[in-house]
Amino acid sequence: EIVAAAEAALSDGPLKGKRVIVTSGPTQEPIDPVRYISNRSSGAQGTAIGKALVALGAEVVFVTGPADVPPPEGVQVVRVETAVQMLDAVQAALPADAAVFAAAVADWRVAQAASSKMKKEKGEIPTLSFAENPDILATVSQMTKGRPPLVVGFAAETDNVIAHATAKRLRKGCDWIVANDVSPATGTFGGTQNTVHVISDDGVEDWPKMAKDAVAERLAQRIAGALVG
Amino acid sequence: EIVAAAEAALSDGPLKGKRVIVTSGPTQEPIDPVRYISNRSSGAQGTAIGKALVALGAEVVFVTGPADVPPPEGVQVVRVETAVQMLDAVQAALPADAAVFAAAVADWRVAQAASSKMKKEKGEIPTLSFAENPDILATVSQMTKGRPPLVVGFAAETDNVIAHATAKRLRKGCDWIVANDVSPATGTFGGTQNTVHVISDDGVEDWPKMAKDAVAERLAQRIAGALVG
Repeated sequence: EIVAAAEAALSDGPLKGKRVIVTSGPTQEPIDPVRYISNRSSGAQGTAIGKALVALGAEVVFVTGPADVPPPEGVQVVRVETAVQMLDAVQAALPADAAVFAAAVADWRVAQAASSKMKKEKGEIPTLSFAENPDILATVSQMTKGRPPLVVGFAAETDNVIAHATAKRLRKGCDWIVANDVSPATGTFGGTQNTVHVISDDGVEDWPKMAKDAVAERLAQRIAGALVG
Repeated sequence: EIVAAAEAALSDGPLKGKRVIVTSGPTQEPIDPVRYISNRSSGAQGTAIGKALVALGAEVVFVTGPADVPPPEGVQVVRVETAVQMLDAVQAALPADAAVFAAAVADWRVAQAASSKMKKEKGEIPTLSFAENPDILATVSQMTKGRPPLVVGFAAETDNVIAHATAKRLRKGCDWIVANDVSPATGTFGGTQNTVHVISDDGVEDWPKMAKDAVAERLAQRIAGALVG
């Protein structure tokens, strides 16, 4: 990692001197000390994005949940579990020139996580009630002071991908949304390929199905174009 | 794996000719296509037990949820996600001379898992209701026909370890319970060491804190003693 960091520092890529926050992986929301709610995000797309940004010379703060795919080399890694922790880490990493929120953050956490293991009692079925998690994408997109000039969100959808993602971009206030179809049949979660649509003020760009690394490289180039012109 | 299987087949260990089912890892219970409930079991203890049984010559069917630690070599691996699938796999693997249920099986599944991703709507907080999962340990322990002669359960507790585990053994009807403290401070889940108590008709044996591999080897020896005498 030291070598990669040194290479990045020496790199004369277009993002030299630019600081980018990348979030990655799932979050884990505790139910009790042993049980948790999570999701099938592997962290593969986030790691690929971090790597591609480093390759263009960016200084990357990589805020990651418990992902299967390890962080890329040459980034500053901040490990978190919950959505609340992830927001704290993102805010601590500001200011930045851009933020790419590729993590699959839990929308909800368990309202009152138990401090000892929930016991199974005959005939008693628990119900879980939830509290809304902080919305990291909306919070950062709507900052009135110190907002990163470029905020990129992701929309993992299982149906009506473009419509849902277009609405999400307007609702959150981010600049771009990278939308993809994560229904199990596509194999996106846990897989190596991704078919994305990049939605911005300019409309919808449909990118062909390609490796997550290739998606990341194209996105990093697009970020460099937006930040450096 | 082929070499290890061949070695096991050729082994003249005390468990030669004995068939043992081992379950391992967490289960994952879907909430919707992308979200799930799971637990912090790594599969380390189950893998160590499978390995130790193979080393004593047993034929091992290894039924595993999505674990961090890969299955041992020389076993027949059956991969599952949910508790329902795990019970099916165990029943399909019967008859057996012994069953060691080291998996951390979810007590509950989501009553009606959604077929598309649950959307976050302003102001709406979901509640999840649960259905009780099949109890693999009790089901196999209480079989009136074809019950394995030795059924070993695990009790992962965060408090009152011995009392909870002793009651669990009687309630489930298994022969032995291997009880341990998995409260976060112990580092058992995800860690390499374990402090267990083996509860049987003979009472409670307190084993010293030792590596999970050592726990597995001692347990395999005890199983050999029980089956072969």
